Amino acid sequence: MKRTHTCGELTKTDIQQEVTLCGWVQTRRDHGGVVFVDLRDRYGITQVVFDPSHNKNVHSKADKLGREWVLQITGKVSLRPKGMENSKLKTGEIEIMTDHLEILNIAETPPIEIEDNLEAGEDTRLKYRYLDLRRPSMQKKLMFRHEIMHATREYFKQNQFVEIETPILVKTTPGGARVFKTPSRVHPGKFYALPESPQIYKQLLMVAGLDRYFQIPKCLRDEDLRADRQPEFTQIDVEMSFVEEKDIQDMIEGLFKYLFKTVLNKELPTPFSRLTFYDAMSKYGSDKPDLRFGLEFEDVTEIIKHSDFGVFKSAADKNGHVFCLNAKGAGGFSRTELEEIIDIGKRHGLGGVAWMKVNGTVLESNIVKYFSAEVQKQLIEKIKAQDGDLLLFAADEFEKAANGLGQVRLHIGKKLNLIKDEWKFLWVVDFPLYEQVEDKWTARHHIFTHPKDEDLDKLETDPGTVRGKMYDVVLNGWELGGGSIRIHRKDVQARVCQVLGMTYEEAEKTFDFLLNAFKYGAPPHGGIALGLDRTTALLSGIADIREVIAFPRNKAAENPMDGSPQEWNKEFLDDLHMKLDVVKKQ
Amino acid sequence: MKRTHTCGELTKTDIQQEVTLCGWVQTRRDHGGVVFVDLRDRYGITQVVFDPSHNKNVHSKADKLGREWVLQITGKVSLRPKGMENSKLKTGEIEIMTDHLEILNIAETPPIEIEDNLEAGEDTRLKYRYLDLRRPSMQKKLMFRHEIMHATREYFKQNQFVEIETPILVKTTPGGARVFKTPSRVHPGKFYALPESPQIYKQLLMVAGLDRYFQIPKCLRDEDLRADRQPEFTQIDVEMSFVEEKDIQDMIEGLFKYLFKTVLNKELPTPFSRLTFYDAMSKYGSDKPDLRFGLEFEDVTEIIKHSDFGVFKSAADKNGHVFCLNAKGAGGFSRTELEEIIDIGKRHGLGGVAWMKVNGTVLESNIVKYFSAEVQKQLIEKIKAQDGDLLLFAADEFEKAANGLGQVRLHIGKKLNLIKDEWKFLWVVDFPLYEQVEDKWTARHHIFTHPKDEDLDKLETDPGTVRGKMYDVVLNGWELGGGSIRIHRKDVQARVCQVLGMTYEEAEKTFDFLLNAFKYGAPPHGGIALGLDRTTALLSGIADIREVIAFPRNKAAENPMDGSPQEWNKEFLDDLHMKLDVVKKQ
Repeated sequence: MKRTHTCGELTKTDIQQEVTLCGWVQTRRDHGGVVFVDLRDRYGITQVVFDPSHNKNVHSKADKLGREWVLQITGKVSLRPKGMENSKLKTGEIEIMTDHLEILNIAETPPIEIEDNLEAGEDTRLKYRYLDLRRPSMQKKLMFRHEIMHATREYFKQNQFVEIETPILVKTTPGGARVFKTPSRVHPGKFYALPESPQIYKQLLMVAGLDRYFQIPKCLRDEDLRADRQPEFTQIDVEMSFVEEKDIQDMIEGLFKYLFKTVLNKELPTPFSRLTFYDAMSKYGSDKPDLRFGLEFEDVTEIIKHSDFGVFKSAADKNGHVFCLNAKGAGGFSRTELEEIIDIGKRHGLGGVAWMKVNGTVLESNIVKYFSAEVQKQLIEKIKAQDGDLLLFAADEFEKAANGLGQVRLHIGKKLNLIKDEWKFLWVVDFPLYEQVEDKWTARHHIFTHPKDEDLDKLETDPGTVRGKMYDVVLNGWELGGGSIRIHRKDVQARVCQVLGMTYEEAEKTFDFLLNAFKYGAPPHGGIALGLDRTTALLSGIADIREVIAFPRNKAAENPMDGSPQEWNKEFLDDLHMKLDVVKKQ
Repeated sequence: MKRTHTCGELTKTDIQQEVTLCGWVQTRRDHGGVVFVDLRDRYGITQVVFDPSHNKNVHSKADKLGREWVLQITGKVSLRPKGMENSKLKTGEIEIMTDHLEILNIAETPPIEIEDNLEAGEDTRLKYRYLDLRRPSMQKKLMFRHEIMHATREYFKQNQFVEIETPILVKTTPGGARVFKTPSRVHPGKFYALPESPQIYKQLLMVAGLDRYFQIPKCLRDEDLRADRQPEFTQIDVEMSFVEEKDIQDMIEGLFKYLFKTVLNKELPTPFSRLTFYDAMSKYGSDKPDLRFGLEFEDVTEIIKHSDFGVFKSAADKNGHVFCLNAKGAGGFSRTELEEIIDIGKRHGLGGVAWMKVNGTVLESNIVKYFSAEVQKQLIEKIKAQDGDLLLFAADEFEKAANGLGQVRLHIGKKLNLIKDEWKFLWVVDFPLYEQVEDKWTARHHIFTHPKDEDLDKLETDPGTVRGKMYDVVLNGWELGGGSIRIHRKDVQARVCQVLGMTYEEAEKTFDFLLNAFKYGAPPHGGIALGLDRTTALLSGIADIREVIAFPRNKAAENPMDGSPQEWNKEFLDDLHMKLDVVKKQ
């Protein structure tokens, strides 16, 4: 080993010991002819002293050292002079009086500062990621990610799960997100798909009787660009046999409890609260509500039916909903502030956001004239409006109205500083199994999701009201993951397919090897997938998942460091029996 | 949870308890009107009894049960009648008297038997892998693999390594194995490469100061088909900073010691023995010698120079070598057996294998006439030949002669039953850095491998004798992995490139982002990559790595289960801005 210690461990108890350290020059300072170097490695910083009165030869060598040069130094651990201690560093009471210096490598001036409070553009940081990652705060994030991965693996192993690697080269299945495809060189005209998730393979492991599976795999999706989307991401992937929804939920709550204890040293209360999809939407306007603050909606459709306000009435008449949010104490909002709110609503699909201010016991707004005194009274009661409140309304079909006002709620929560610093986990459950797209029913999740037992009877008669055995786990307004109990019996699968206008035989053709496997004794099973990137980011208190990925891509799915994706050349294409067809498409 | 216990845990101490089990029907037997079912899950088998005198209703339901049906049963744990115990099962003293039976799923007759002693073709096993994996022996292998992965992670974490995920979508680097490429949909005319290993990214993590990195990543190679090769495989990937060869070797010996203790409950002696590449080749004819038996070669070139045997002489004259292997006691081999040996030599690149039998103190063979009495005497002494021995000779240039006779050695070792049941680890070290291909020097490993310090002076004058800081870890004749200390300084890199006929600037163009990173203070570093599939197989006592992979591919890189690789269709190709160019190539 080229060192006896790291730069993060020497203290007063090591005084007089001869040590060898390796690391990078964080700073070099010259004080009255003595050179002080802060030597940095992953473990910390140690002050290294080159004193000509101690060792002239080494001092003269130290004179030329530059930032980020790589050194090996040997010397004695000494107490720093009184008053020169640095209480911020673990090693702040000592320094090394250097007797030997070896320059392991020189360095050009780094294009970004190796400082935690770095101000640099994203593409610069990504291009020089190997320098960006030298910053202690970045290293801490990667080590924190490792802690989470490791604790996750410990937890599942303790619970009799087997970690099993599923393939990276797979077959496409229809639907779902777009998948990457890689041409086969040895099988001209054929390709492998890259997995968007191990879904089918983990279900096959249940058919194989492995009983409890987990994996922390890379998943890949060739989707359209979006700022917070990475074409590759990491999942905590879980599947269990002979279980119902609550078994999976209990297991995942146990995981988070274990993670909080192990990596944050915090007690996380369980069980998590639960909201149905319907309640989450109609109270918070989101299927991943942030429960760190209130501002719950009220459904005022029934009251509003008796108003003369056309927008509300026509929504209500078309089977839509009118939701009202009471922004407590926001009655003093300026016209600009109100317009900002309306704008948010519009950007999220609403025609507009209606508002009323509460002045004493009276409602004021440009639309109150359409609301009779009786209607106003009912409104005030229902929404518990008080002097100085601001009522905000959205009217449209259920999901659209709820979602738009949900975004307004988030805005108000932030604006009024209502968001508490706490961890609010919850389960959102009972999602609708189907949604109607152009008169046809389509699966909201995937066709293997099991309907709620009590809704099985409605499959043929009222599919729109059939709920699935589905659950999302949500933290502070972010979806960490979701899952479902899967259909394991042919009779149920056939009925679910029929609603989608597909015979079982057609489904068999499409999902051939999975449905074929199910013939030979599939157990009841279900699972969940959690986003590791998002989980790590949230538990680190960060919003951007790129901060917890070693080599992430930018918003254009490019890596400014290695320059991928790269241009094809003829040799590569020939090898794969492919030609470009770009001109035509552009 | 649909069960209170698994099928592998109930014993005498649970008598009279009411339990619910879930599992698959392994067998159904009818004895005098009573139905006995062996119910199987991952954890074991429990005997379940349907007795009409106990519960008529449940018995009649049990009558139609078929193999691999999935059941949930509830009943009381009872002692088996005297003489009916099964001492082979942990649960063999008890049975369940069933009160309630729910058929969770039916099953068609499985196309392969769910029995450990299965006789089925490989493609059938792979096609129905979900049934193949129901066999307890297969489940045990996957669980063993998990044990190895988990213990590996524990070990590295205890040693301050950080597990860091490197990207799946990367840039190609020239040379090395062929890599898979996936076209970018959002960047027409461009592609991502899939990593054949995280080599460059882990070196960048060292530049980033992460100090100790490991990962257990999937690697992908689009190479030509070969029986024991999988296009995707798993690696235990390691890199460390501020180290020399011995530091990496010590760390890996520690890993194997930990694995043996943890997963095999065995003490593994360390340090491992070490052989230079030269010694391994000239003593065992292999760079991954099996040391479970002796049969070491002698280099008899100097002696043989004085013979009149043309084949040997001309090899010796052309700077080649003549190796002799003493197959102790094999002097009685028949002509057929000798011809088998010669054939093995020929199949591995030799012109032939010469032989001499030792009869008393006399050598006998069709070629002894070319060897004077003095030469024979020297030979007998050198090779310690005794009555009844068989001497086998190979003559050619060094590696060819050694390799051919090395294959003969393996054959003789097996034939004479010399291979002991033990674990023989060793390090093969000091590989030549370069090899000459058509008058040009090429890198034997990769251009970043650091030359031995004591050979640096010969880089320009005698590159053929320059050894690298390289090491392979070998177990029982299998290479488990290999690694090297990397070049971290520009001056050394430039000299190594020059031997290869490349300027540093040219190398910089090719390996742009790595060599660019090296400008900003690269630390001395090195690492290793171990094959997880091979390691798991060997530690399980299995030769075929496909036995320890959940969903492997067949010899044609196809997966008979999911049918990948699959045919392109126009929609997929259009999406990727690609066209097939197959006709021309076929």
